[in-house]
Amino acid sequence: MNINEIRNAARRNAGHVRRTPLLTSPFLDEIAGRRVYVKPECLQHTGSFKYRGAHNAISQLTADQREMGVIAFSSGNHAQGIALAARQNQTPSTIVMPSDAPQMKIDNTRALGAKVVLYDRATENRDEIGARLAEENDLTLIKPFDNEAVIAGQGTVGLEIANQARDEGIRDAQVLVPCGGGGLTAGIALALDHDAPDLQVRPIEPKGFDDVTRSLEAGAIQRNAQLTGSICDAILTPSPGELTFPIMQRLCGAGLTVSDEDCLRAMAHAFTRLKLVIEPGAAVALAAALFQPLNITGDAVIVVVSGGNVDAPIFTDALNRFA
Amino acid sequence: MNINEIRNAARRNAGHVRRTPLLTSPFLDEIAGRRVYVKPECLQHTGSFKYRGAHNAISQLTADQREMGVIAFSSGNHAQGIALAARQNQTPSTIVMPSDAPQMKIDNTRALGAKVVLYDRATENRDEIGARLAEENDLTLIKPFDNEAVIAGQGTVGLEIANQARDEGIRDAQVLVPCGGGGLTAGIALALDHDAPDLQVRPIEPKGFDDVTRSLEAGAIQRNAQLTGSICDAILTPSPGELTFPIMQRLCGAGLTVSDEDCLRAMAHAFTRLKLVIEPGAAVALAAALFQPLNITGDAVIVVVSGGNVDAPIFTDALNRFA
Repeated sequence: MNINEIRNAARRNAGHVRRTPLLTSPFLDEIAGRRVYVKPECLQHTGSFKYRGAHNAISQLTADQREMGVIAFSSGNHAQGIALAARQNQTPSTIVMPSDAPQMKIDNTRALGAKVVLYDRATENRDEIGARLAEENDLTLIKPFDNEAVIAGQGTVGLEIANQARDEGIRDAQVLVPCGGGGLTAGIALALDHDAPDLQVRPIEPKGFDDVTRSLEAGAIQRNAQLTGSICDAILTPSPGELTFPIMQRLCGAGLTVSDEDCLRAMAHAFTRLKLVIEPGAAVALAAALFQPLNITGDAVIVVVSGGNVDAPIFTDALNRFA
Repeated sequence: MNINEIRNAARRNAGHVRRTPLLTSPFLDEIAGRRVYVKPECLQHTGSFKYRGAHNAISQLTADQREMGVIAFSSGNHAQGIALAARQNQTPSTIVMPSDAPQMKIDNTRALGAKVVLYDRATENRDEIGARLAEENDLTLIKPFDNEAVIAGQGTVGLEIANQARDEGIRDAQVLVPCGGGGLTAGIALALDHDAPDLQVRPIEPKGFDDVTRSLEAGAIQRNAQLTGSICDAILTPSPGELTFPIMQRLCGAGLTVSDEDCLRAMAHAFTRLKLVIEPGAAVALAAALFQPLNITGDAVIVVVSGGNVDAPIFTDALNRFA
C-alpha cells in the first residue's frame, strides 16, 4: 500500500466524508504539560472514523457486487459506517455484531437499514460467521481493518492531520491513535510517513488488551488472551491484522496501554473542556496524553478521538465520577 | 452597522477564532421532517460563540486601554470569551457574574485569569455594577451584546454559515438562533442579509423569557418580567439591546419560544446523534427545529448551537430523562 491509495480514497470520499477540525483547550494543555490537539472523529458521519473506510470500500464495488450486497462483522462502529455507506450506494448490508455491543450501536446499525446478526463474543468466532454468511449468500465481505480499501479510507484522517499540523505550526509531536485491529493506526501512519514524516504514530490500547503493543515488542503478531472485560468495546480485537501489522511495525513507535478508569476520566475532561461526547475505546489516546505525559515525547501531542457511540449510562457514570 | 464591520472582524479574528463545521444526522432529519444543519459553536474556544465578539472588541483597544484593563458583565459565556481574549492581549479583566451562574462558567472565567465579582441576579442590576466599577477603576466596559465590535464579531458566524450553505446547496432554509440580548442574532442577520439573503434568521427564546419575540411583535422594546426561573441561564437577559433590536426588527422573522423540558430533550438528541455537549440556553434552536416543525418553513433548517458550558448534573439529568 502507498500514499496514492489514500489520496484516491480522499477523492472518492470528497463530498461524503466530513473533514473534522483540530480542537484545543488551554486546560488540557496544562494537564498534559504540552500542547494537546484533538482530532474529533466522533463528529464524523455515524459517530466514528469507520465511515471513511466503509465509504471508500463500498464506492469501489462492481454493479454485480452492489446488487448482491455486502457483509461485515463489527462491534458497532464499522457496522454503522458500512450500513450508511451501503444505503447511500443502494446496496443491502448484513452486519454480524456481538450480542453485548452497546445498544446504541445495534439500534443505529438497524436504523441505517442493515440486517443485524448477533453472536456471542466469548464463544463464537466472528470471522467464521462472516465468511460463512458471505459464501452462502454471495455477499462481499468488508473486513473491519484487514482490507486495503478500508485502511486507505481511514488513512484520510492522516492526510487531514498532516495539513492541519502544518497550518498550526506543529512540528515536534507524536500522534496517539486508539488501536484495535490497526486499520486507523496503519492508515494514519502511511499518510503521515509521506506527508508529515516528523509526526510519529503511537498505537494506544486498553490495559489487558495490548495485542498490538506486545506484537510490536515481539516483532510478530501476538493475540489477546480474552475479548471481553473492558468498557473499550470498539477496540477489543483478537490481534493486529495481517495487512495492518507490517505497516505498524515499519512506521509506528511503541504502543501504550490505558486503564478503563483513565478512559472515563478522559471522557469527563472531553465533556468539560472540548464539549465532545467520546466513547471509552475512543478515549484511550486522550487518556494517554493527559495521564501518561512522561511516556510521550514532543512539545505538542496530537490525539485522535475515534468515536462517540457510547450509551448514556456509561457516559453519566464518567461524569458522576470525574466531572 | 454593515457587512464591512463583520468582514473586518473576520480578518481580526483569523488565526484565533475557530471555523466551526456544519453537522448533520439522518436521525435528526427524520425527527424534524426536513434536513437539519447544526452550527456547533460549543466547539468554539471557551465553549461558546462569545469569544468571537470578545476577541474582535479587545483586539481593537488602544495601548492605554489595554494597560488599564477591561470589564464585562455576563452570565458566564461572554465572561470566558473576554477572559481568554484579554489574557491573549495581555490585558487585565474583571467580570461581573451572577452568583447563581453555572459553577463551570465561574471556575473557567477565574482559571482564564479574570477577576470575578459576583452579584445577585434577582435583586441587583448588572449594568449599574459594571458601569460603576468601570468608572472607579478606569476600565473599558465591553457590553455582552450592545456593542458594535461585539455584534460584528458574532456576525462572523453568519459569514461562515453563508459559505457553508452555499457549499451544501442549501437555499430554502431558516436560520434558528438562540437569542438573549440579540448580539449573535443581529450579527448573523446582518451577515446573511448581505451574503445569503434567502436565509431568514429567527430568534429562539425560552418560554417565559420571550422579550425579543414580544418586542418584534410590538415593534418596540419589551422587557422580561423576571430574570430567573429557567435552566437557560445563557439567554435570560432583561431586554433586547438598543443596537441589536433595530437590526433584528429590520431583518429577522418572528421569534419562537421553547420549554426547558424540550431543551433537555434536544440536549439528549445532540448527545446521541451529534456527539456534542450543549448547554440548555444553546439548545433552544435545536429544540425548535426538532419539536416545532410546523412553526418553521423551508426544506432545510440551519440551527445555531451557541455553547456547551453546562454543569454535569444538568447534563446527566437530560440523559437520564431523554437519552
